[in-house]
Amino acid sequence: MRELGIGLIGTGFMGRAHALAFRNVSAAFELPVSLRLAALADADPQRASQCAQAWGFATAHSDWQKLIDDPAVNVVAITTPNHLHFPMAMAALAAGKAVYCEKPLAVSLEQAEQMHQAAKAAGVVTRVGYNYQHNPMIEWARQMVRDGELGQIISFDGEFCEDFMADGQAPWSWRCEAQHAGGALADLGSHLLAMARYLLGDVQAVCADSQTVHRQRPVQAGSAELKPIVVDDHTQALLRFANGARGTVSSSWLKHGYKNHLSFEISGTLGTLKFDQERLNELQLCRAGQAGFQRLLAGPALPGYAAFSPAPGHQLGYNELKTLEVHALIMALAGEGQVGTDFAEALAVERLAAAIRVAAREQRWVQVQSV
Amino acid sequence: MRELGIGLIGTGFMGRAHALAFRNVSAAFELPVSLRLAALADADPQRASQCAQAWGFATAHSDWQKLIDDPAVNVVAITTPNHLHFPMAMAALAAGKAVYCEKPLAVSLEQAEQMHQAAKAAGVVTRVGYNYQHNPMIEWARQMVRDGELGQIISFDGEFCEDFMADGQAPWSWRCEAQHAGGALADLGSHLLAMARYLLGDVQAVCADSQTVHRQRPVQAGSAELKPIVVDDHTQALLRFANGARGTVSSSWLKHGYKNHLSFEISGTLGTLKFDQERLNELQLCRAGQAGFQRLLAGPALPGYAAFSPAPGHQLGYNELKTLEVHALIMALAGEGQVGTDFAEALAVERLAAAIRVAAREQRWVQVQSV
Amino acid sequence: MRELGIGLIGTGFMGRAHALAFRNVSAAFELPVSLRLAALADADPQRASQCAQAWGFATAHSDWQKLIDDPAVNVVAITTPNHLHFPMAMAALAAGKAVYCEKPLAVSLEQAEQMHQAAKAAGVVTRVGYNYQHNPMIEWARQMVRDGELGQIISFDGEFCEDFMADGQAPWSWRCEAQHAGGALADLGSHLLAMARYLLGDVQAVCADSQTVHRQRPVQAGSAELKPIVVDDHTQALLRFANGARGTVSSSWLKHGYKNHLSFEISGTLGTLKFDQERLNELQLCRAGQAGFQRLLAGPALPGYAAFSPAPGHQLGYNELKTLEVHALIMALAGEGQVGTDFAEALAVERLAAAIRVAAREQRWVQVQSV
Amino acid sequence: MRELGIGLIGTGFMGRAHALAFRNVSAAFELPVSLRLAALADADPQRASQCAQAWGFATAHSDWQKLIDDPAVNVVAITTPNHLHFPMAMAALAAGKAVYCEKPLAVSLEQAEQMHQAAKAAGVVTRVGYNYQHNPMIEWARQMVRDGELGQIISFDGEFCEDFMADGQAPWSWRCEAQHAGGALADLGSHLLAMARYLLGDVQAVCADSQTVHRQRPVQAGSAELKPIVVDDHTQALLRFANGARGTVSSSWLKHGYKNHLSFEISGTLGTLKFDQERLNELQLCRAGQAGFQRLLAGPALPGYAAFSPAPGHQLGYNELKTLEVHALIMALAGEGQVGTDFAEALAVERLAAAIRVAAREQRWVQVQSV
Repeated sequence: MRELGIGLIGTGFMGRAHALAFRNVSAAFELPVSLRLAALADADPQRASQCAQAWGFATAHSDWQKLIDDPAVNVVAITTPNHLHFPMAMAALAAGKAVYCEKPLAVSLEQAEQMHQAAKAAGVVTRVGYNYQHNPMIEWARQMVRDGELGQIISFDGEFCEDFMADGQAPWSWRCEAQHAGGALADLGSHLLAMARYLLGDVQAVCADSQTVHRQRPVQAGSAELKPIVVDDHTQALLRFANGARGTVSSSWLKHGYKNHLSFEISGTLGTLKFDQERLNELQLCRAGQAGFQRLLAGPALPGYAAFSPAPGHQLGYNELKTLEVHALIMALAGEGQVGTDFAEALAVERLAAAIRVAAREQRWVQVQSV
Repeated sequence: MRELGIGLIGTGFMGRAHALAFRNVSAAFELPVSLRLAALADADPQRASQCAQAWGFATAHSDWQKLIDDPAVNVVAITTPNHLHFPMAMAALAAGKAVYCEKPLAVSLEQAEQMHQAAKAAGVVTRVGYNYQHNPMIEWARQMVRDGELGQIISFDGEFCEDFMADGQAPWSWRCEAQHAGGALADLGSHLLAMARYLLGDVQAVCADSQTVHRQRPVQAGSAELKPIVVDDHTQALLRFANGARGTVSSSWLKHGYKNHLSFEISGTLGTLKFDQERLNELQLCRAGQAGFQRLLAGPALPGYAAFSPAPGHQLGYNELKTLEVHALIMALAGEGQVGTDFAEALAVERLAAAIRVAAREQRWVQVQSV
Repeated sequence: MRELGIGLIGTGFMGRAHALAFRNVSAAFELPVSLRLAALADADPQRASQCAQAWGFATAHSDWQKLIDDPAVNVVAITTPNHLHFPMAMAALAAGKAVYCEKPLAVSLEQAEQMHQAAKAAGVVTRVGYNYQHNPMIEWARQMVRDGELGQIISFDGEFCEDFMADGQAPWSWRCEAQHAGGALADLGSHLLAMARYLLGDVQAVCADSQTVHRQRPVQAGSAELKPIVVDDHTQALLRFANGARGTVSSSWLKHGYKNHLSFEISGTLGTLKFDQERLNELQLCRAGQAGFQRLLAGPALPGYAAFSPAPGHQLGYNELKTLEVHALIMALAGEGQVGTDFAEALAVERLAAAIRVAAREQRWVQVQSV
Repeated sequence: MRELGIGLIGTGFMGRAHALAFRNVSAAFELPVSLRLAALADADPQRASQCAQAWGFATAHSDWQKLIDDPAVNVVAITTPNHLHFPMAMAALAAGKAVYCEKPLAVSLEQAEQMHQAAKAAGVVTRVGYNYQHNPMIEWARQMVRDGELGQIISFDGEFCEDFMADGQAPWSWRCEAQHAGGALADLGSHLLAMARYLLGDVQAVCADSQTVHRQRPVQAGSAELKPIVVDDHTQALLRFANGARGTVSSSWLKHGYKNHLSFEISGTLGTLKFDQERLNELQLCRAGQAGFQRLLAGPALPGYAAFSPAPGHQLGYNELKTLEVHALIMALAGEGQVGTDFAEALAVERLAAAIRVAAREQRWVQVQSV
């Protein structure tokens, strides 16, 4: 059986999530290839070593370029801060390695365009970490849309709200900088836009509005020194999909009461479907002719669920969505699957977000260029 | 104690709802005036008589003008089809009678403008039937907004969805005619716009999009003859409020699973508040610093609730909202209150809806003229 | 059309609820008889007069016996404190009047037995105010059980919890006295037992346990003087129904978070059904073969709902359940219906509650004697 | 750093769940010992080899005794059918190995008593797989109870319902045999009893009732041959806790609509708390003085959650509860923790279940003997 060497850059929240996923995937699935946790990189050599040992990676690097150059590494997983996605991915592509990059693809549309071109030229498998899409309930929802179970799609209404910046005294961070892909739209909204595209396809035109409610924030927690903020706290938009459906989307990191509220409702001529990431094992469905919404709980009839449990209602967690994303990556690398967000699709998400920014700034409808 | 004579025109859904409300209000409240159910009018003389007797009205008329001219009638309540609101209200105003008209105020903006001018000239009390606003939970929500309990208001996201036209074979009716104030925006959306204004105040600008999904419908149930439909099935809009808040609203009569889903979420710097008319005795509130949403159930601490029950959690119904609206009308007539939607405010709702129509047709942001 | 004269004793919470219901019923329904609000009695003559005028009763009495003796009175509605139900109902029955008495039937099983015998001897219509049963959703649930839609019934699990005595400093009241039918089981639990019987029929045997958590309470709010309490704060029981189903019931007035939580779940071989009085317009149903619970909202397909609204999802309120109970009473008086709880059925509820008390005290299973 | 060798017996649902957990725990936690996946046993040698390779175990055995005897194995994890728990655990204890056994401890109370004695004699760490208790939300709930945040505990009302046997044609399986610890009480109810004890402590007395609704089932799916069934489909009980609280519990595998509904409500003088395993990342809490229930979502303030995600609302899954259980086991083995269910506690659960069986059979209250 062919062996794939995994190189992982970064040991933060997402670094560990990747590590857990790469460790889980072999136990959850029968894979057509075998995985080798080849190398882990972190700028801090000690942390690199410790994590490599705890997580089972064979080698540790403090220089990420060395990880990319390591012949034992076939796939480069990038979980570093957003502004490093571009140089790392470009280097990996230059080395002919497959790339699995956390979202967002890049910190500017220009970078994203270049990365897409480079990936096309390299001809390798690429994936971007929009792991919410790998939820078996989302796959099911997508299948219903594709199979016409909801009829002609009329609308998609979605929001992604959290509350982590709701306090006006929450300090400045890189998430508040436009050049680091900060702001509620880029940070949260991009997940929602990716989801809208995943479920309904291309968006042709947008109109939007944005607010920066807290125009300055402490440079750090408790500090009296304030820093001006220009990125959006809250953005909302109208969408026109290529399939004729219309949509509303909004994203906010100021909404008290929400922790991970990526939610949407899809209505069609034959049914309405609802989802909320804060209850990720559920869908609410009402088909034409039914009296009301019915709660559907995740169960083993869905392949992605069955990989983790043969019993229904036992609940998958966020990290298992990551494992499912890694599984899709591996299947693509083995030439046995095409599920997931590649650089072309991630660029389409970035173009959509960019169009929303223009529409909000210029207060007009804006056409979205397809990839 | 002064006596007020009530004249009611119409004996349909809304006619009976008014009759129930006028009968209930004296038992639910200690009123500063006494009510006399003076006259009931219906074009069908037999139905007029029967209903007058069953509902306790002293006189029955088949000619509504006679009801208006009846000196025993001080207040004219209009519950007839939309296109009759204008002539009836104008006649009542001409006779110097107070007018309590069902929504929408009129079937065109021009009529609404004239009715507003006539009411101003007559100097009488006017009210329009946006009874959802009289829900004690809505009064509470409004008070929270006004008292700053939610801080600076950031957003209002609302929708009013029902499913009664979801079936493409649901037949044509007057609700499908623009000249009868048909369409999802006028029929349902106007309630939502009135609610948005009631809670957050003036809207300055809108951008919108509309769809007619079913472009023809049977002329009547089961008929093979089809009639073209031009009114909207689904409309969505972005709003900019005068207070700086932004909003999204959508209305649809095609959404499977909903029966009376007038719902909204208001977010502010100090809290988030949610409401759904399908559970009209509840609010969901999360204040800054709280871990999650808390369910608030209607109880006697709210005066409008206490009028019906001294015990919490006993649930008001839709008809009691109507009784509360009638109570507000009577208090205004007695010179002891100003709660409720008068013709000026109802005109503002119509202008807002009209601006949304223009914005959708011309695909651009449109300024809304204040009243 | 025959006229029925209504005599109402009491002007408190329930007095007003009756008045509203008697006023509403003629507008909501086409009745086979006409109603006359003949007389109202309250021990306070001034209050009797004021309420009679506001609520539309022809005469006011301060002596309830005079109301009973009034030849214009055909039906005596009793809404006074529990210990007065017995003398008033016995006097009305002696006068050959129909009796509509608030729950509980009486303050002792002995009284209840006598009242049942007297009613049988008088041969008049009797009703007891278990108005939750008149909810159209409950009628629907009962119909499903009777029609076998849930298959063989396996279990009934119910609770009735409120929080109004949850604070240990909540003062003593007549509800804390056994001789006034006080305690959580008598005050709240009896509604639940009546509901269980209404839906599933006779109970043959019970086992139970009771607690008095707060063994003394202030004699009045804020007082330092304490009074010992012997009635139950919380009672739970196992039930064996005659149809083979088993049940658990519990009632508590100490449960923080609940205001009117009369809830139950019925499971059968073909489905599961859930209800909660705090959302009285909803049922949750999962039929065999369905993936999950579906929310059913009240609508005009249910006759009791259609009486108040032709549009679904518009929500009935508590007072409308009372109107439905009054409608059932009037139909029985007109010889056109048998719906509702008569003295025989109310006695069966009292016997069941009494058996639970014995089972709790003696810590053993107790047989319930059928009526 | 000390190394612990893990030996795992069984490769089914639970075998894989253990494997995933042992693989995850090192990445999720900084452990005071290092783990070695030393050996995997399955009666089928080929499956043993395949799984060992996929899951990363060093050795594969088809004879479980050899795994126990393997000096590289320090801990024996048992995930085989219930009737094998006894011989395997006894052999492991005889070999002086720590034992981590899936629930139930054994298929008879006699076996459970012997296992407890053997464990005490061996003086090794033992754990039984009641992994629901390791949910950080449950730990939080327990902490609230212990810290008195809910005041004096008044009641525990719980149920564990699923629907996997709801169809009367669902075939016989070992779960239908009493000698394999079958029946709804043993299979599902034992989780609930363990939870009740974990949260509130010892139960002193029980009264109960049981039903076998489907008294025969096909010997296998679709077969016309029927086999008599004697184990319970549905059991309910009243509990008296040593701390004075009272409880109701019920378990059913016939309840349509439920997949993993281990739910409970704890009420105390200072608050009410609710949990449902089908939404395992949530608690509903109402404290004294609060208006209604508040939803609490799992987040990184809870150590068990923080091990998997630094971001709130990202949802743990069932398998992560298993990882948390394994973490507790390892901490106990390292001498740094005592969390979890050992053989003594598992025996207490078995005694409680046995008392319920006696109470149901003999229709009387039964004292529960403490361990």
